[in-house]
Amino acid sequence: MKEALLYEGKAKKVYQAKDRTGKLVLAYKNDATAFNGEKKSSFSGKGRLNNEISSRIFSLLHDKGVETHFIERLTETEQLVHQTEIIPLEVVVRNVAAGSITKRLGIEEKTTFARPLVELFYKNDELNDPLINDEHAFILSDVTRTELQEIKEKVLKINEELRKIFRDIHITLVDFKVEFGRLASGCIVLADEISPDTCRLWDITTQEKLDKDVFRQGTGDLIEVYEEILRRLEDKQ
Amino acid sequence: MKEALLYEGKAKKVYQAKDRTGKLVLAYKNDATAFNGEKKSSFSGKGRLNNEISSRIFSLLHDKGVETHFIERLTETEQLVHQTEIIPLEVVVRNVAAGSITKRLGIEEKTTFARPLVELFYKNDELNDPLINDEHAFILSDVTRTELQEIKEKVLKINEELRKIFRDIHITLVDFKVEFGRLASGCIVLADEISPDTCRLWDITTQEKLDKDVFRQGTGDLIEVYEEILRRLEDKQ
Repeated sequence: MKEALLYEGKAKKVYQAKDRTGKLVLAYKNDATAFNGEKKSSFSGKGRLNNEISSRIFSLLHDKGVETHFIERLTETEQLVHQTEIIPLEVVVRNVAAGSITKRLGIEEKTTFARPLVELFYKNDELNDPLINDEHAFILSDVTRTELQEIKEKVLKINEELRKIFRDIHITLVDFKVEFGRLASGCIVLADEISPDTCRLWDITTQEKLDKDVFRQGTGDLIEVYEEILRRLEDKQ
Repeated sequence: MKEALLYEGKAKKVYQAKDRTGKLVLAYKNDATAFNGEKKSSFSGKGRLNNEISSRIFSLLHDKGVETHFIERLTETEQLVHQTEIIPLEVVVRNVAAGSITKRLGIEEKTTFARPLVELFYKNDELNDPLINDEHAFILSDVTRTELQEIKEKVLKINEELRKIFRDIHITLVDFKVEFGRLASGCIVLADEISPDTCRLWDITTQEKLDKDVFRQGTGDLIEVYEEILRRLEDKQ
């Protein structure tokens, strides 16, 4: 199903799909990295879990009218997606303060924002993915003013849908990071993945962290919590 | 002319003005600090020079219709201003890339921006004055959406006027930082100072740095270059 390796990221490999022009195969790896690659490890089963979880979530978003690059899950660790040119912006939505923002702006962890907070980061490992403002985004990427507005509206809609999806499985969506890509047609769609690697997910009752923070903070078994997320999603469908 | 000391900053002391309700005396100090206070020194004459330069520039801006807190220069190192509640945002305008942005975003020094770039920083020494976006500004200060739009329009107008003022004395205005304050009436006006402490100023022909970078980088005599700025402003008027 796949041909030339186009790109290898920290968590996925990207291949040209065989005989399918304009389509890619995303192969999820077992590697976990944190703090911009400073902390690294590998967890058997992680690639399968994230492929399963992300495929399910993209399908649910698709049902809600969100346009994404996702086509279908192919194998345990692979999925087929539309080829896009990734816009070099990491778009973060925060419902509750956690992680970098607590140190950066001195906002106490667990503070709920009155409105979901959107942040843009410039996707650049060498620079440590720095926070940027809208004006920087126009300088550092090819997005237009209208497109950035569109991206912000889309990501807030995605936040609303994700909050519902996770509330249904008794989880608070604390924050998440997504990327957008441009299809050959020029349209901008949700790309990359949505998984416990890219979301902060807290059990509503116990506030237990069910995401990559267990690896970042060394407070739990990554595979166990990712399995817990997948199990809750499966039970609901 | 002055009563109680209200506040001491890195470069100025702020006093209640005697018998003048709602007015303050700003007393410029000889201290110079850089890298958020990590590098410190004192230069005899600096307070007088910045008071002179800032007073002249605020008067020139006032003539162009920019509303500011400035009333008049009182003594060699003091000026009278309207009392404002300072909005905790450092508003930076960049015409040419220099300083922190070159490292933060990997933009080469001397790159001219197609349009003046506005950046907001949260005025908080403990947090090292972090870069923020508009949404953060609404969380961290009491500015409304309309007021922030107004501040951005004002600072771009100020940039246009400052560029003309400096072009007239053969200087490129590379970038500058200003603060805004709220008058008792609620109106937001330009506050703080505009001086070689808060602007990057390069000779148009030689590109010689005529600002605090000579202290930051240890490449020249701070008093000599500040005197050069004042002399050029005096010669023009």
